[in-house]
Amino acid sequence: MSSTLGNKLKITVFGQSHGKAIGITISGLPAGIKIDMDKLMSFMERRKPGNSKISTSRKENDEPEFLSGLVGNVTCGAPLTAVIYNKDMRSGDYKLFENAPRPGHGDFTSFVKYSGFNDSRGGGHLSGRLTAPMVIAGGICKQILEKSDIRIVSRVKTIGGIENTSFDEGGISEELKDLILVTKENGDSLGGVVSTTISGVPAGVGEPIFDGIENRIAAGIFGIPGIKAIEFGSGFHGATIKGSENNDQFKIVNNKIVTETNNCGGILGGISTGMNITFNVAVKPTPTIGRFQKTVDLKSMEQVEIYGKGRHDPCIVPRILPVVEAISAVVIYDILLEEGAI
Amino acid sequence: MSSTLGNKLKITVFGQSHGKAIGITISGLPAGIKIDMDKLMSFMERRKPGNSKISTSRKENDEPEFLSGLVGNVTCGAPLTAVIYNKDMRSGDYKLFENAPRPGHGDFTSFVKYSGFNDSRGGGHLSGRLTAPMVIAGGICKQILEKSDIRIVSRVKTIGGIENTSFDEGGISEELKDLILVTKENGDSLGGVVSTTISGVPAGVGEPIFDGIENRIAAGIFGIPGIKAIEFGSGFHGATIKGSENNDQFKIVNNKIVTETNNCGGILGGISTGMNITFNVAVKPTPTIGRFQKTVDLKSMEQVEIYGKGRHDPCIVPRILPVVEAISAVVIYDILLEEGAI
Amino acid sequence: MSSTLGNKLKITVFGQSHGKAIGITISGLPAGIKIDMDKLMSFMERRKPGNSKISTSRKENDEPEFLSGLVGNVTCGAPLTAVIYNKDMRSGDYKLFENAPRPGHGDFTSFVKYSGFNDSRGGGHLSGRLTAPMVIAGGICKQILEKSDIRIVSRVKTIGGIENTSFDEGGISEELKDLILVTKENGDSLGGVVSTTISGVPAGVGEPIFDGIENRIAAGIFGIPGIKAIEFGSGFHGATIKGSENNDQFKIVNNKIVTETNNCGGILGGISTGMNITFNVAVKPTPTIGRFQKTVDLKSMEQVEIYGKGRHDPCIVPRILPVVEAISAVVIYDILLEEGAI
Amino acid sequence: MSSTLGNKLKITVFGQSHGKAIGITISGLPAGIKIDMDKLMSFMERRKPGNSKISTSRKENDEPEFLSGLVGNVTCGAPLTAVIYNKDMRSGDYKLFENAPRPGHGDFTSFVKYSGFNDSRGGGHLSGRLTAPMVIAGGICKQILEKSDIRIVSRVKTIGGIENTSFDEGGISEELKDLILVTKENGDSLGGVVSTTISGVPAGVGEPIFDGIENRIAAGIFGIPGIKAIEFGSGFHGATIKGSENNDQFKIVNNKIVTETNNCGGILGGISTGMNITFNVAVKPTPTIGRFQKTVDLKSMEQVEIYGKGRHDPCIVPRILPVVEAISAVVIYDILLEEGAI
Repeated sequence: MSSTLGNKLKITVFGQSHGKAIGITISGLPAGIKIDMDKLMSFMERRKPGNSKISTSRKENDEPEFLSGLVGNVTCGAPLTAVIYNKDMRSGDYKLFENAPRPGHGDFTSFVKYSGFNDSRGGGHLSGRLTAPMVIAGGICKQILEKSDIRIVSRVKTIGGIENTSFDEGGISEELKDLILVTKENGDSLGGVVSTTISGVPAGVGEPIFDGIENRIAAGIFGIPGIKAIEFGSGFHGATIKGSENNDQFKIVNNKIVTETNNCGGILGGISTGMNITFNVAVKPTPTIGRFQKTVDLKSMEQVEIYGKGRHDPCIVPRILPVVEAISAVVIYDILLEEGAI
Repeated sequence: MSSTLGNKLKITVFGQSHGKAIGITISGLPAGIKIDMDKLMSFMERRKPGNSKISTSRKENDEPEFLSGLVGNVTCGAPLTAVIYNKDMRSGDYKLFENAPRPGHGDFTSFVKYSGFNDSRGGGHLSGRLTAPMVIAGGICKQILEKSDIRIVSRVKTIGGIENTSFDEGGISEELKDLILVTKENGDSLGGVVSTTISGVPAGVGEPIFDGIENRIAAGIFGIPGIKAIEFGSGFHGATIKGSENNDQFKIVNNKIVTETNNCGGILGGISTGMNITFNVAVKPTPTIGRFQKTVDLKSMEQVEIYGKGRHDPCIVPRILPVVEAISAVVIYDILLEEGAI
Repeated sequence: MSSTLGNKLKITVFGQSHGKAIGITISGLPAGIKIDMDKLMSFMERRKPGNSKISTSRKENDEPEFLSGLVGNVTCGAPLTAVIYNKDMRSGDYKLFENAPRPGHGDFTSFVKYSGFNDSRGGGHLSGRLTAPMVIAGGICKQILEKSDIRIVSRVKTIGGIENTSFDEGGISEELKDLILVTKENGDSLGGVVSTTISGVPAGVGEPIFDGIENRIAAGIFGIPGIKAIEFGSGFHGATIKGSENNDQFKIVNNKIVTETNNCGGILGGISTGMNITFNVAVKPTPTIGRFQKTVDLKSMEQVEIYGKGRHDPCIVPRILPVVEAISAVVIYDILLEEGAI
Repeated sequence: MSSTLGNKLKITVFGQSHGKAIGITISGLPAGIKIDMDKLMSFMERRKPGNSKISTSRKENDEPEFLSGLVGNVTCGAPLTAVIYNKDMRSGDYKLFENAPRPGHGDFTSFVKYSGFNDSRGGGHLSGRLTAPMVIAGGICKQILEKSDIRIVSRVKTIGGIENTSFDEGGISEELKDLILVTKENGDSLGGVVSTTISGVPAGVGEPIFDGIENRIAAGIFGIPGIKAIEFGSGFHGATIKGSENNDQFKIVNNKIVTETNNCGGILGGISTGMNITFNVAVKPTPTIGRFQKTVDLKSMEQVEIYGKGRHDPCIVPRILPVVEAISAVVIYDILLEEGAI
């Protein structure tokens, strides 16, 4: 199993949802970087469940303990390892699923892959809980990028196919909040689309062919549980219009070459144009729902039904924003480090 | 520059559009595999330009010469290198662009990245011509996969936003052919969407988190020039429906666990379910068009206009099908080799 | 900083000598392997300091805590992380060295590399203490290899240039024990040579050129602090004899092709012959000694002298045996996993 | 099969001794570097056989053809591929060995590994001929390093156990020449030791633990056929002396911290000290000799004898010097590129 991402900056995620701890090791952080711990905790707070009626009531103790890589709050060049001990685990809620894989989850595939030895409690290593350590790593990278005026912002574009009209960071419109609550009451769930903008990346960064910015961001982003699609710039819409409409023409502004439009999402030939890097990702509706669903008992090989009793989010889209930002930060920082561009 | 893809099976693409040769090195092919050269040439034929009115009139000599890795037509375990010598090069057509980057191309970004030392003739290393060696590698992998009943089929889903009603392999409807010809006459170009289905991959293949099937396919597919988006299974549409609609429920058919629907595109938690692996990719409209477009002369830093005189495809979507199949084959074969599943 | 080794099986070492904890993450362990914890603790015991008069009196609490990757004592396919919390840290002993790098240590080079931000206490991440987590990983791999009758044994060949006449596992002769004690009393230290034999690896494993068994073992073994040389088979001696003497001629024994001698150390062209894999490594004398040595104060840039007051081993050669076995086990198991040979 | 070395600068060797061509692809060369072709040819000349009585009379056409990566003689950022077409191939000489593996060669192990499908002519991909493309890559890297005053010099230290008293570049004493000729007449062969010095690498380069300079150089150097041992600095001798003798004490010269001695070979904790990087490698005696040796016919599984009729070197040590320099250059340049130190 490879839960490692990155080249010069490398992150490895470990832990199972209901194991002793989850955590992350980050290799390749330059020495001498002071981490703003308050800022990091605020960033992690955005992912934390239990903050509102529209998210799960499950409490997670996301307080990370830093085991290595720091002297005080300053990086020392050695791999940084942070762990979060698991506490509020009601594995009982999951007992029901032990032999009956939840539709839409990795329960079935990991059972097959690991011949039944996988840690099935709460999704094990494939649980959304593993996004907490991703946010630690990404939060640190974001702080570093911001010093070079590189900023990453994700916002909710749609939920359940409805446009989000709120433009607050992380915010969603009242209409969407209502939609989520109604869906929750119906024992159902919703997905959505998250838009991300990375500003401040200079032109000429990234590699052609297999190591381009699109390849790298996509490879990282699909590591976030629940994401099934990604489009850069005009993406799927761009495939419906003409070259004369989709091409971004060049002009000079303030002695700098820029494009009039940004349908390429800031990337041409895998390399940055210097414009904003933009992409959308599709988040599938949370698979665990409060409805009876057909599945198969893996022991008896009989058709059964399961019902999601756990404290699950009816919609993880708002909580996934910091995770998308985090992975984007890890990828972009890794690319910049590799190219000596930061 | 990293033009290398894969772990246990590794391909490295080299060459520039108007250089001496383009080619590929494939490491990790098992010894003792007989390559059906006629079949490989037929596969390459599908990518070749100049086959019809709707593609470029530029002739490409795609006859590969195998420099290493074979004894007769049988793999010997050593890296396989195949080259295609460049012959029909009218660099003159591109002279116009030398200092004026074409909108929508990598001309500008590679100029910046390589400080002007890039081979700008015909797009250099970032040219679509580099997909020819990809097709050699993928054609070989496809042949091997087919022996294990793993099949990869790509078809044109839409062009210019219009559904393709032809279901022939590689075929497009008369309506779309007409659309392309009209667009060509208008000096414009079209993009489209390609659908791919991979059948025969057993359940339990792939890795969770950062090394899943989605991550790996996406990282490879974005190596194909012009592709800007990818969605697995229900993808962006899945983000508009409810969990109860998007979840694939499990049932038993012929003593085997299958899903009733396949909205997950055959992948859960990065691991194969045993159902078909399905994904769509968006191909942007060909950037070189027969119209005046604004750009900047990189030497004089003056605003200029360019006009695409080259013999370019008004729509590369039909020709990109074997390339998508090729890269899919390389990625899937690499995953299977790594897991000892083939 | 890359403290990661391996391809399909990947280990990442983290922690600093006097930080909160040291540890290791192992990715790629197959699911369903039961770890014999008593056996693992016995293996770790061999590396532990404070066991005899000839090693340091510093106590180390090497009791690992397994944070992830196990359900009970059985691997679940997810990355396995084990940590050892640091307890008996007398950083005071090292205070003296803070600005004055110890000759023969990484103090100076890591100060330069990390611009003074390195964790200098006790050698930080470059401390010999980091071999404890290596032994956890290697101990697990050894257990797995032994099930396939692959055994790895290291023994002390020489200390201070004197042959070891004891052939007990890990044992050294009385003559050598006396030599070490006398050297310790003189405030000095000794190095030595460790011989390793890996039996049971079938013929045909490994890769030619850059990914051969020699390349892989060497790349891993030089990760052990204090090792400065490695020779396979007849090694440096082989370079003094003739081809007719050094070549290993082939014969048939029990219907199997074997070699009459094993000067190639079980490896030809990077690939295993099926005979024992053999190699020697040179361990330099412990750099921290109870004598005045010249160094430079890095703050004042003045010439100073330091004196090693810490509780250091006069000779780490006996304690390094399990570390050499551990890294050998990690490398060989990784190669076998990659080739599907185990 | 992985015949690839390097991270940011990556080289891939391909070809078989008697196939159509051998060659190399180098990825990661910065754009805008002018290659001095005359200098490169002179460097390759040092490896070329047929230059003197003490080397093989086999002629090799080592004239490389550059297929990609250059515009004129200037790198363009794209992967550089150079090939050498094979011409003077007398496979007949090797026919004898087809079913009878030569003692000391990779014939047997590659037969087992590739189930008999390996290209056995002239050693196939495991032939010493594959060092020619290594020298192309290394020659280019050397030229680049020299611009930053980093120099790599290898010399013959011993042959057949006798010290070389000549200090000319690449030269060996008359005594050694005579020894080689006498050994050749006796149908036998000799090995030796090569000493390498890399000067000009600044302090603070390299990584601790598994990615140190020793690990990286060793991993590359064992890719050269015939090398069986490597020692850095005082190496195996260092293991026979005391810490007080082996430690390199620090002093200040010209306001710079240096060491009084250099027993660590310029590397502490995997990181450069700023002193010369020094290492010795052991080259085994050429396995192909003009004497009857016992082997086994792989088809009939009968004991047979073979006699080396080919035009082989009685001693490749002088010709291996540029190969050791080449691989050292590739490794050091890769490390410096990765760290942004060049």
